[in-house]
Amino acid sequence: MAKPKKQPRPKAETPKGFRDYFGAEVTQRAEMLAAIAAVYHRYGFDALESSAVETVEALGKFLPDVDRPNEGVFAWQEDDADWLALRYDLTAPLARVYAQHRNDLPTPYRRYAMGPVWRNEKPGPGRFRQFYQCDADTVGSASMAADAEICAMLSDTLEAVGIARGDYVIRINNRKVLNGVMEVAGVLDPSDPDKFAHERGIVLRAIDKLDRLGPDGVEALLGEGRKDDSGDFTKGAELGISEIRVIMRFVHATRIIEDQLADVADQQRDDPLPPGDVNNVEAVRYLRELVSQSEIGLEGVSELEEIAALLAAQGYGPDRIVIDPSVVRGLGYYTGPVYEAELTFEIFDDKGRKRQFGSVAGGGRYDDLVKRFTGQEVPATGVSIGVDRLLAALREKGRIRAVDHGPVVVTVMDRDRMADYQAMVADLRHAGIRAEVYLGNPKNFGNQLKYADRRNSPVAVIEGGDEKARGVVQIKDLILGAQIAENATLEEWKERPSQFEVPRADLVAKVREILSTHGIGQG
Amino acid sequence: MAKPKKQPRPKAETPKGFRDYFGAEVTQRAEMLAAIAAVYHRYGFDALESSAVETVEALGKFLPDVDRPNEGVFAWQEDDADWLALRYDLTAPLARVYAQHRNDLPTPYRRYAMGPVWRNEKPGPGRFRQFYQCDADTVGSASMAADAEICAMLSDTLEAVGIARGDYVIRINNRKVLNGVMEVAGVLDPSDPDKFAHERGIVLRAIDKLDRLGPDGVEALLGEGRKDDSGDFTKGAELGISEIRVIMRFVHATRIIEDQLADVADQQRDDPLPPGDVNNVEAVRYLRELVSQSEIGLEGVSELEEIAALLAAQGYGPDRIVIDPSVVRGLGYYTGPVYEAELTFEIFDDKGRKRQFGSVAGGGRYDDLVKRFTGQEVPATGVSIGVDRLLAALREKGRIRAVDHGPVVVTVMDRDRMADYQAMVADLRHAGIRAEVYLGNPKNFGNQLKYADRRNSPVAVIEGGDEKARGVVQIKDLILGAQIAENATLEEWKERPSQFEVPRADLVAKVREILSTHGIGQG
Repeated sequence: MAKPKKQPRPKAETPKGFRDYFGAEVTQRAEMLAAIAAVYHRYGFDALESSAVETVEALGKFLPDVDRPNEGVFAWQEDDADWLALRYDLTAPLARVYAQHRNDLPTPYRRYAMGPVWRNEKPGPGRFRQFYQCDADTVGSASMAADAEICAMLSDTLEAVGIARGDYVIRINNRKVLNGVMEVAGVLDPSDPDKFAHERGIVLRAIDKLDRLGPDGVEALLGEGRKDDSGDFTKGAELGISEIRVIMRFVHATRIIEDQLADVADQQRDDPLPPGDVNNVEAVRYLRELVSQSEIGLEGVSELEEIAALLAAQGYGPDRIVIDPSVVRGLGYYTGPVYEAELTFEIFDDKGRKRQFGSVAGGGRYDDLVKRFTGQEVPATGVSIGVDRLLAALREKGRIRAVDHGPVVVTVMDRDRMADYQAMVADLRHAGIRAEVYLGNPKNFGNQLKYADRRNSPVAVIEGGDEKARGVVQIKDLILGAQIAENATLEEWKERPSQFEVPRADLVAKVREILSTHGIGQG
Repeated sequence: MAKPKKQPRPKAETPKGFRDYFGAEVTQRAEMLAAIAAVYHRYGFDALESSAVETVEALGKFLPDVDRPNEGVFAWQEDDADWLALRYDLTAPLARVYAQHRNDLPTPYRRYAMGPVWRNEKPGPGRFRQFYQCDADTVGSASMAADAEICAMLSDTLEAVGIARGDYVIRINNRKVLNGVMEVAGVLDPSDPDKFAHERGIVLRAIDKLDRLGPDGVEALLGEGRKDDSGDFTKGAELGISEIRVIMRFVHATRIIEDQLADVADQQRDDPLPPGDVNNVEAVRYLRELVSQSEIGLEGVSELEEIAALLAAQGYGPDRIVIDPSVVRGLGYYTGPVYEAELTFEIFDDKGRKRQFGSVAGGGRYDDLVKRFTGQEVPATGVSIGVDRLLAALREKGRIRAVDHGPVVVTVMDRDRMADYQAMVADLRHAGIRAEVYLGNPKNFGNQLKYADRRNSPVAVIEGGDEKARGVVQIKDLILGAQIAENATLEEWKERPSQFEVPRADLVAKVREILSTHGIGQG
């Protein structure tokens, strides 16, 4: 074995745009994903974990969102000349898996997948190059029941993880309706789908921003363009007056439908009607009128109507799921129904302004992903949950505890009696209590208490020579101790001791008692 | 939007050496890992999920196992000239994380990590380039209590996932003992540790193979070399007679200790003594004598003795954890205690021969990983569980069900009444029963039953126009139906109908009853 050459020390850093997750960040995400998986499983979806590495050929080299064509993947060339890459989402691998295994999979194939994906993008604040996705898709069914089912499942999922009814709404639209509006406005020619594609892109992006820009902002983008508050100018679609008028009539209609459905939802919460009596079907009347000159538009309205009826039959009314014609969801990808889940409670943004929490999940129907491989068009529809955003929402709502308590720490007063301390820890652990012995240098007792503090330990156990001789242990309630140190008067301090001496045999019972007074679960 | 150019269709294949995991493969692994995490958490270990991508600089370019220097990593160069790579294990990232965050982490730092790792190796049967690891390590403690704790935790973990006591044994050794034997044999010079490194590598590999080669095979490898059954010749260490004699005395001693401890373990199972009265301490007497001329060897024996005493104090005797001087565990890596978990029940190998299941976890103490980054030596000890092997063992022992039942399938007799079928499914799901409506083309009813069969569904629900008119549904017990079709006599077939007609209102209750007769859990 040759001596390694002297080299400068490596830097202990994650690559730019990557990060590590510690303790509760990991376990809370795992718990949330397990709760989501339980709902998906109940809906008949099967788990799939595809390999993180795909051939570039199978993956397609770039993300499908043509709005941001420079987003890339992490790719490398193998010795045998194959290019491999890390998956950038869970949908492209699903298409590959379905094409590869289609003879062994049931049709339709309902599957869910959760795991990290990687994007070779410029990182920014809160924007990482590795993050979790959590998807559910149904492949091989053209039925609107598949789309309705995913919206119902998304509603159940949000409630299962802790988002209360009324704190979210799932909005559904149909790309065919948008295309119908485009056709009526004269910027879509069904006989030449590529014509006006550039203009339609601008229009869709403008509608997508309706909530932020307001109708005037959207109208500006349909014409010459729009100057924002900072003075930056965004070039518009440069449509003519009559085209703009059609699209703006649609934009205003979306607002009316939204208001009307909000009223119904409020009423439903205050004075519920039986499910089935309240539904989204009313909303589609407006839309049918708007696109009455477009075959594709009318088809989209009928699909929306069908989904609304299926949902109503299962009891999902507009207090949970609404038709919202302003939902766009990306550009080149979806071919029919699109849907997104929005959290409607308010939070304060960085500048202290109130705003709605916003979108945590979205999806829709896409019919040509598998075709790349097989030549056959396979209908599919699915949803993706933004795992980090949903976790942030649960923290915001106090649904997951902000503080994660550490283990009970058994301190080491006499290093020759480590076996005694280990036996205490073993007793606690076998009783289901999270516990550990201090394994650092025990010389400085202050360091042991500092360690317990850093671990956020609820309880410390102390057994010196004197205690050993008398068959007792000292048990310090560190949470109460901290409360007393911070707030208590001298009287209270005397009345509420935070340290208890109990017989060694009562160690487990006393620790359990203290943990339960603080509402700390065990195990 | 320009038309994409015509290209040949991509191949729908995972890259060589990668695979996908479906359904129960995914959920059973997730359940096992959750059970392991619960034990680790109870022992005070915190979760860590480091990024899958590291800089090559931080990772070190190749695997540390010098026995196989050609094992590589998947690496690529970034635009800004940084080389990045996928992690090849969970220990190298731990070293980087600890060096990077050491001021914010408690010391000692107990952490567990579970997730995929990637190896750029030649794939083979059952040998994949992406696989799961599941590690627990304590960083920053030189105490033997840290090693003892990990062995106790490993024992609890195996039992928690379903390996019964008696079906496994955890073997502990200490690299210092092996080094002591080398020193006594004259192939280790403490003043020049690199001398005889090549010979020691051969000796350690030979001892590691003792179970397979037997003492004669080991002795051959210490001398000229060994010809195996196929005629292939492995060159030996070419030691002299007296050196070989010392090492073979050690080899025979390991056999004696093993037999003796097996007797104690058997006795302990049949007629248990109180914990503490039975321990591994006796075993170390042999070893102390063998290495009495080596300071490092005696240090290793004392460490083993200390670990055995700590474990005995917690009630872990040789029926669970034994001292076994023949344990080697890799080559260049470990500096003190080493340990491995072996499953002792027998299985049949590919050729129909009985053999022990073998190792499912291993680890030990390593003291110089963090030093690469900081220059400071940080003591650490940890274990890694072979996730796929442990899963295979649980399947072998029938601890996880071989068959995973699919959802209840509500068939579609009348495509215009999809809302009715969806409402049935919603009722079942809200009662916690896994269920789905058939979403394929409903025209051919046979296809729907074939689908239910492929999904391994326990129950199918049927409601045609006639049933609808009478307010009833037909419920088919598909498991019973299959049993009857396979085995029943005509009499039995008449007596045990597998299809039931119940009022629509009783749908949920009847399905629940059928599922419970088959022992199928719900949710």
